[in-house]
Amino acid sequence: MQFYLDGYAPGDPDILAAAPGAENRPSELPDTTDVLIVGTGPAGMLLAAQLSTFPTIATRIIDRREGPLQVGQADGVACRTVEMFDAFGLSAPLIRESYWVNETVFWRPSPDDPAKITRTGRVQDTEDGLSEFPHLIVNQARLLQYLQQYMAKSPTRLVPDFGWDFETLTVAREGEHPVSATLRNVATGARKTVRAKYVVGCDGARSRVRDAIGAMPQGDFANHAWGVVDMLAVTDFPDIRLKAAIQSKSEGNILLIPREGGYLVRLYVDMGEIDPNNREAFRLHTQETVIATAQRVLRPYKLDVRSVAWFAVYQVGQRVTDRFDDVPGNETGSREPRVFIAGDACHTHSAKAGQGMNVSMQDTYNLGWKLAAVLEGRAKPDLLRTYTTERHAVAQRLIDFDKEWSKIMASPPKDPAHPERGGVDPAELQAYFVMSGRYTAGVATHYPPQTYLTASATHQPLAKGFVIGMRFHSALVVRLADARPVQLGHAARADGAWRLYAFADGSGEKLRALMIFLAESDRSPVKRYTPAGANIDTLIDVRAIFQQCHRDLKVEELPPMLLPRKGKFGLIDYEKAFTPDVRNGSDIFVLRGIDRAKGALVIVRPDQHVANVLPLDAHHELVDFFGQFLIDQVQRV
Amino acid sequence: MQFYLDGYAPGDPDILAAAPGAENRPSELPDTTDVLIVGTGPAGMLLAAQLSTFPTIATRIIDRREGPLQVGQADGVACRTVEMFDAFGLSAPLIRESYWVNETVFWRPSPDDPAKITRTGRVQDTEDGLSEFPHLIVNQARLLQYLQQYMAKSPTRLVPDFGWDFETLTVAREGEHPVSATLRNVATGARKTVRAKYVVGCDGARSRVRDAIGAMPQGDFANHAWGVVDMLAVTDFPDIRLKAAIQSKSEGNILLIPREGGYLVRLYVDMGEIDPNNREAFRLHTQETVIATAQRVLRPYKLDVRSVAWFAVYQVGQRVTDRFDDVPGNETGSREPRVFIAGDACHTHSAKAGQGMNVSMQDTYNLGWKLAAVLEGRAKPDLLRTYTTERHAVAQRLIDFDKEWSKIMASPPKDPAHPERGGVDPAELQAYFVMSGRYTAGVATHYPPQTYLTASATHQPLAKGFVIGMRFHSALVVRLADARPVQLGHAARADGAWRLYAFADGSGEKLRALMIFLAESDRSPVKRYTPAGANIDTLIDVRAIFQQCHRDLKVEELPPMLLPRKGKFGLIDYEKAFTPDVRNGSDIFVLRGIDRAKGALVIVRPDQHVANVLPLDAHHELVDFFGQFLIDQVQRV
Repeated sequence: MQFYLDGYAPGDPDILAAAPGAENRPSELPDTTDVLIVGTGPAGMLLAAQLSTFPTIATRIIDRREGPLQVGQADGVACRTVEMFDAFGLSAPLIRESYWVNETVFWRPSPDDPAKITRTGRVQDTEDGLSEFPHLIVNQARLLQYLQQYMAKSPTRLVPDFGWDFETLTVAREGEHPVSATLRNVATGARKTVRAKYVVGCDGARSRVRDAIGAMPQGDFANHAWGVVDMLAVTDFPDIRLKAAIQSKSEGNILLIPREGGYLVRLYVDMGEIDPNNREAFRLHTQETVIATAQRVLRPYKLDVRSVAWFAVYQVGQRVTDRFDDVPGNETGSREPRVFIAGDACHTHSAKAGQGMNVSMQDTYNLGWKLAAVLEGRAKPDLLRTYTTERHAVAQRLIDFDKEWSKIMASPPKDPAHPERGGVDPAELQAYFVMSGRYTAGVATHYPPQTYLTASATHQPLAKGFVIGMRFHSALVVRLADARPVQLGHAARADGAWRLYAFADGSGEKLRALMIFLAESDRSPVKRYTPAGANIDTLIDVRAIFQQCHRDLKVEELPPMLLPRKGKFGLIDYEKAFTPDVRNGSDIFVLRGIDRAKGALVIVRPDQHVANVLPLDAHHELVDFFGQFLIDQVQRV
Repeated sequence: MQFYLDGYAPGDPDILAAAPGAENRPSELPDTTDVLIVGTGPAGMLLAAQLSTFPTIATRIIDRREGPLQVGQADGVACRTVEMFDAFGLSAPLIRESYWVNETVFWRPSPDDPAKITRTGRVQDTEDGLSEFPHLIVNQARLLQYLQQYMAKSPTRLVPDFGWDFETLTVAREGEHPVSATLRNVATGARKTVRAKYVVGCDGARSRVRDAIGAMPQGDFANHAWGVVDMLAVTDFPDIRLKAAIQSKSEGNILLIPREGGYLVRLYVDMGEIDPNNREAFRLHTQETVIATAQRVLRPYKLDVRSVAWFAVYQVGQRVTDRFDDVPGNETGSREPRVFIAGDACHTHSAKAGQGMNVSMQDTYNLGWKLAAVLEGRAKPDLLRTYTTERHAVAQRLIDFDKEWSKIMASPPKDPAHPERGGVDPAELQAYFVMSGRYTAGVATHYPPQTYLTASATHQPLAKGFVIGMRFHSALVVRLADARPVQLGHAARADGAWRLYAFADGSGEKLRALMIFLAESDRSPVKRYTPAGANIDTLIDVRAIFQQCHRDLKVEELPPMLLPRKGKFGLIDYEKAFTPDVRNGSDIFVLRGIDRAKGALVIVRPDQHVANVLPLDAHHELVDFFGQFLIDQVQRV
């Protein structure tokens, strides 16, 4: 992490210099704001954290709750989510206090005595090399607390406004703040209208923002019920500290998730399908009945529950909302979106695959940088249309996956004596789990080339391991100037900047020419799109990876583009050049299939997805790529 | 990390349950306290953090300063210190925000043009496998802030009392609080007497506590002067982000230390020997003259200083205080020590080897658990005598090392044309640096078997890599119950507990017999020394490391000693059993030279030093070892 650029300051370096007025911001809701976020769940808080870092953007985030979540809700944190949290500087504490999902075990009825369960399989949870981070489990409340701390340390010192309920909104065709949102103070009942440039509904499965823009959830009518218990228990079940998928012969099935701290454990108990309109059927599932079901499933093992930290029965259908913004299909092209929805407002599904919180945060990680770029006048407003396009496809895939997974998980085990009766073989279940590992780790998301943000794969062979449309897959390298082993992907910060990773060609000549082009040409995207007075890497951050060992490369021979002067003192930033990590046996050129003769230029979006791979000398294509959506800051001035 | 043992609680899991009365403790200094610490530097704060975790121990820490340190002072954090911080749960944030010393470079006058410096060598800073942690650089103020946060989250919610100056103390022969310390309020001038069971002077090189107990610094009269500048600068010196030892021909020498955040750098500029009584000579060294000297040393490179974060000239002699407690040699045996000194009060030396802050904190890490054990009635008071014995030898070795190192660093470079004129060859300097790497990393400290805390090396061959008297050298293992790769040494917490690491014998029978002995025998140290009502691992924490791969060992077959019931719910602690980490190629039996046929029992002190290595079946010797200094809690009740 970098700090002290504009002078030494005592204390926590994560506390950034406050934007003007940020520290004595009125606590009341303002009449106008740039962005109004509805809902302080994972989607809303991630978006608020992302926006809070831009000093010029005014954001408010409201919730009808009286204060932050204290207990329960989601707990699965996929590898990809940890990668994203790393861009906020939050991966280290999360990793420290979370449970790590290292292996998953499968239990089924014993062939000898089907009334008893027996272990049938054990697999590694995350395949080697999939991500530099583990798959974690930690309670949602804690995760939100980290995001809230981040916001409070950001330049805008953003704090959620609790106790405000969203009622409805209208969108005007004109005006600086065209969205008028009506809010109600939960304590006093008083109403308040806030006019915003953009409103984002992260208000859950029963989203009122979604209703207000006329978007419709589509999918199954039937709901599935789950009992969820976070408990402290004493048991002789030996895999109580491993993630376990447990199928009993006739008592149902359980997903067991060990939790942070070494003692807590969560059980998801499948209570079957219920009629969503029959509240009585739903109420039959109490803490006692759910625990009793779990105890029957776990036979012959005993489960002695000593303390329940959280209990809930929830029902959920598998649905996707038809669009994620306020522009109906027949108006596309006639106006830009002003209202968005994200998270459960867009997609609902089971909790079994541990995807909900993760996909919801990826929704707003996709949206956040786009909103910031448009609000700061760096990108054209139609960039915002790509949000629905990209995330709707992801949501649809999520529901498809969840249907398959839920079906398999909810099926009775196949009876070897009566295969004709159907059911799922434990080997099938395990095979499906392994196959879907990349998906559940969150690293399979692939934005297709249907928007200008994802290029076609013309030059993909130059860097086979950085798949266009997928997230940038980090690898270990050595930072040249201080010889430190670092993850290249951790150059990414949640700062709205694009990153150009230039992998050197064999002679290094094309790399050098590219650096000169970027530093000197009037057509250089770095020069054209960086706002006047801003540091040179504010919008497009250029990094280079050389082929030599770090001891064979001289800092003093780096091109000036890789030793940029920054800040009020014009200090040199020494963290732009990298080499393979020979000592640790990690050659990124091999690991990611970089063409050693030609090199490659990998263009990475602010949300860490690869937008394009280009030859190092494709200066025109580079210019054209950014020209599609960025606004020339030189002409603008 | 483990938490929620006594129930789920929202929020930061590092905030421990408060001791009775801790949260509304009066802010005024009390008339009596268990321990009074004088000085909030690294030694004092580390001790305060250590003591703060014991709910029954009342501690106050005072300083004449108005508030916490904001800038400057030490910055080197040796690997061993990071290991120690890990026991406080503080390694992750430190590692994240610090500079990592990866390589060190050496510069000397160019043979072609001796007026210019040239790079003559480059070495890895810390040898592979020396520690699981890197060598770090971070400012002392930040390090102290972490300790202060830790204290505030501890059961006693300890907060330093700033603005109180220590004047003197007297020690009575009797009474519960025999030490009377006279303090003066800096703001009001009011005096206050605090009576304490123990007083610890961490009040620096001019320690008044040291004076009060009549201890005497011994060593060189002459002082050496150093100019130290923390700066933000622009330079073409290519190794500005590497630790560099720079010798010029005739302008002196510099030690350059890059700092946290990517921009800041510290220069130690050697200003030569001065007469400590001539204040005028000292005042000649100003920020301007020190920077000018540095600029001349660095020729032909330019150093353009843009901002100075901290500047100091300090003078220091190489001295060791004759004793570290209040009992003179002729009274040893007639009374137990009641007053101790630590840190700079005990030893002063140059900053060049980056040892001061590290050794000072190790002083009080040695003392802290001993004070706690005696105050809690778990150990006999003569345990406290081992503090001076152990740490005085370390201090003497530190001064010897510093003399050698300073002499080499301060010598002019040898002129190849005139070797007869003396001076140091750059190759000699580099060779010395490499040789002393283990020492400067802080892992060479070896308590000899001159106290009962360090056994003789009779059974050392059973575990060659866990050297008796040295710190327990961690290695990667797999935690059985959740298949997680963990560092075995990180089982250590700064909680005052001893740890028994039992490495299995070939058949596992001796290990099993030991576990039964520990769990069931009336002679078991675990049973005899654990206070009534406390968790079974409170004083002696038993861990076992098996030889099998984790998938070949069954949790349900572990002996009860390794699945202890804890807390108010009687929950099972699943974190006591480990296996080699085959997947990561780390077999701790190979790495640490464990006898595979016989196994080994490694006894580790609360400060992580190995006290003894025993055969698994040496139950008698185990009983005898602890019997030397622990107090039987069963008989006591």
